[in-house]
Amino acid sequence: MTARVLIVDDIPTNVRLLEARLAAEYYEVLTASSGPQAIEICNRNDVDIVLLDVMMPDMDGFEVCRRLKASPRTNHIPVLMITALDQPSDKVRGLEVGADDFLTKPVDDMQLMARVKSLARLKTLTDELRARALTGQQIAIEDALRAMDNVDTGGGHVLVIDTDARHAERIKTYLVPEHSVDVLVQPADAVFQVTGAPYEVVLVAMALENFDPLRVCSQIRTLEHTRTLPIILIADETDRPKVVRALDLGINDFIMRPVERNELAARVRTQIRRQRYALELRQSVNNTMAMAVTDDLTGLYNRRYFERHLHVMLSKAQSQGRDMAVMILDIDHFKAVNDTYGHHVGDSVLKEFAQRLRRSVRGVDLACRFGGEEFVVLMPDTDMGQAEAVAERVRRAIAEQGFDVGGDRPMWVTVSAGVTLNESVSDTPAVLMKRADVALYRAKRQGRNQVVFDAA
Amino acid sequence: MTARVLIVDDIPTNVRLLEARLAAEYYEVLTASSGPQAIEICNRNDVDIVLLDVMMPDMDGFEVCRRLKASPRTNHIPVLMITALDQPSDKVRGLEVGADDFLTKPVDDMQLMARVKSLARLKTLTDELRARALTGQQIAIEDALRAMDNVDTGGGHVLVIDTDARHAERIKTYLVPEHSVDVLVQPADAVFQVTGAPYEVVLVAMALENFDPLRVCSQIRTLEHTRTLPIILIADETDRPKVVRALDLGINDFIMRPVERNELAARVRTQIRRQRYALELRQSVNNTMAMAVTDDLTGLYNRRYFERHLHVMLSKAQSQGRDMAVMILDIDHFKAVNDTYGHHVGDSVLKEFAQRLRRSVRGVDLACRFGGEEFVVLMPDTDMGQAEAVAERVRRAIAEQGFDVGGDRPMWVTVSAGVTLNESVSDTPAVLMKRADVALYRAKRQGRNQVVFDAA
Repeated sequence: MTARVLIVDDIPTNVRLLEARLAAEYYEVLTASSGPQAIEICNRNDVDIVLLDVMMPDMDGFEVCRRLKASPRTNHIPVLMITALDQPSDKVRGLEVGADDFLTKPVDDMQLMARVKSLARLKTLTDELRARALTGQQIAIEDALRAMDNVDTGGGHVLVIDTDARHAERIKTYLVPEHSVDVLVQPADAVFQVTGAPYEVVLVAMALENFDPLRVCSQIRTLEHTRTLPIILIADETDRPKVVRALDLGINDFIMRPVERNELAARVRTQIRRQRYALELRQSVNNTMAMAVTDDLTGLYNRRYFERHLHVMLSKAQSQGRDMAVMILDIDHFKAVNDTYGHHVGDSVLKEFAQRLRRSVRGVDLACRFGGEEFVVLMPDTDMGQAEAVAERVRRAIAEQGFDVGGDRPMWVTVSAGVTLNESVSDTPAVLMKRADVALYRAKRQGRNQVVFDAA
Repeated sequence: MTARVLIVDDIPTNVRLLEARLAAEYYEVLTASSGPQAIEICNRNDVDIVLLDVMMPDMDGFEVCRRLKASPRTNHIPVLMITALDQPSDKVRGLEVGADDFLTKPVDDMQLMARVKSLARLKTLTDELRARALTGQQIAIEDALRAMDNVDTGGGHVLVIDTDARHAERIKTYLVPEHSVDVLVQPADAVFQVTGAPYEVVLVAMALENFDPLRVCSQIRTLEHTRTLPIILIADETDRPKVVRALDLGINDFIMRPVERNELAARVRTQIRRQRYALELRQSVNNTMAMAVTDDLTGLYNRRYFERHLHVMLSKAQSQGRDMAVMILDIDHFKAVNDTYGHHVGDSVLKEFAQRLRRSVRGVDLACRFGGEEFVVLMPDTDMGQAEAVAERVRRAIAEQGFDVGGDRPMWVTVSAGVTLNESVSDTPAVLMKRADVALYRAKRQGRNQVVFDAA
């Protein structure tokens, strides 16, 4: 994992020192000697991480950070603030203006590399997700980019793993009542514990009795369910080499003892913010993807989805020599409903119809709205007898109970259906649909409210 | 980066040895002593990587690999084959049955860790992409899962970077004519070279004269454009520590000198396959996302997209005190086109209309199909005069040239439009649309083929 790092400091010596260290680890380095220059470079280049000194003349680091985070073009770039003094108040202020992490001068090599590496990894993952989310909704670009700031970080679910109950309870007091905190003193139960509750951050003490803390971390990391769950280590000076190893394993952050209350709160908040932001992006992508295949009104799959699915399923049925049934349904006299009662009532009939249809087919069946008042159901591994059972169940579910359309009494609705089976390897989707359509036409001509099987 | 690794070997000592090594590096380890057992575990568990011995009684490693890769449930799990003898033919056979990488016994520690780490990283990235692709099209699950196998690996674009022209040319002869290969003997030009051509793999010799090969790699890795471009190092025994470092930087693979022709060809093929597969997945996700916001027939944005966009843009215009115009267009007498010539002709008119509309609006404008023969254009930062210019340009583009609908002579089509401006912060999307609609109605009543501005 490498990255393009921008070093911002008004003192040339500091810049050169950091540059040499980062270049030795094969980071690509850009430099800026003032806040305005840094902002300009961020706007122009693909900067992955900003290493930002706080004390600069004219525009200080806090202001630079605030501006970077306020602009949709740059607010996704992680900012690592370098505070001259080990002032907790500086850290808090840095986090208030949106800094992602901080280091104190003199900059410790291991801390520097660990923080930069961790941010580089974060950036890579977020970039991939952002790219997806943006593709779907260019409209929402500014929304999405701004989201990270707007993410609420309160009410988190935190787990503290420490064999020393007294230590764990102290950590807990630092985090409540902002978050709800559980304590686990048996590290062996970690996997059991994290799979049982919706934790958003896990704090792992390095000083576990008779248990390797990194083993706990790797167990959490390899569970499908908790693969992205943020982990923060609580370490002593002597744990340094192991912390470096832990960051390689994908641990998200660490804090050194003695644990400073504000720093801990800030680090937990940052992890919760990132976790919730990533979740939002994933959901945004998933929603857009779902929209592409769903009919807005009824929530059933749409025609596009059906056609692609029919193609795939038919090839599969043919190559495996299995049956497959297709049913086309058309609500009887639906035009009259629209003409008499208006589109509003028509729409509510369609919705109710879709609900009953969905409940009447089997789990393996695929129910779609084909368009207007026409629906299709695809039934894999289904012979004529089974298809008949499904079709009749649907017909009855519609006809035997009136539709509540808001009037004094229910409206009576019926449906006609045409069903056909995949019969030979030469059947194409079009041939299949044509046969079902002909059967539907016969059902209509014979008086509606019935199921007709293709007699071919 | 950690992972869940399944070790498959019929000799308990071998299993224990590998298990101890991997556990020491915090991998979670599962074990199997036979092929069938391994397949069962892969079907049941979230296995990330399979470490597979070739020589086993009953079912050998080749057969296990073939079966894992043939099943859609398991074919995305990377398989690392362990061949007992350093037989090039075994490697080739392993790759033929779909193995992702191979090691030779006795297993070298550095090679083992390097290969496992690299596959773990690959798995993580692919999982994320697959999850997205599958959400959109559950239909295409089997498609997507099978795709990796079906990816064509021929005709790749390969770049060899080596200051020793003679070495580079030999490497080249190993890869042509299967791929097209360029040679670069000036590593300083690497960035320039890779941004200028669509390379799919870069081979970097570690023995560069006066140039750090890892610097070349990190430069390629940090360019936005080539961030995912596969890199294979060509290393000597003495380069081992640096190879480990390179893998940390995200280099994809390495091969030791003396370079064995079949192994090189196989490794290049594997990287090309992965690269093309990831590209396919990304495109599949992007296509689905695009579908969600696009009208099938015309390719314009759809109503859903428009409504979301209108909402966002209106808030923005109001908060910044800027103008914004909305235009609703309705093709005149379109019903008659459908009734007289059929839907087929109607559709081709809609398509041609959409094309002319798209060409007549400005780059910043958003043209959407609202439904049927109704279209909308959203014009940000636009005053009445500018909106009028756009609207008139559209009207003329439709009216002044006949539509070719396949008949003897062109069909003459006109459009009516209603335009309104965002006027106050109390305007809602619904109010805006209503005003534009009223203006459109007046355009129709006044004789059609004209633009009417809301007079409010």
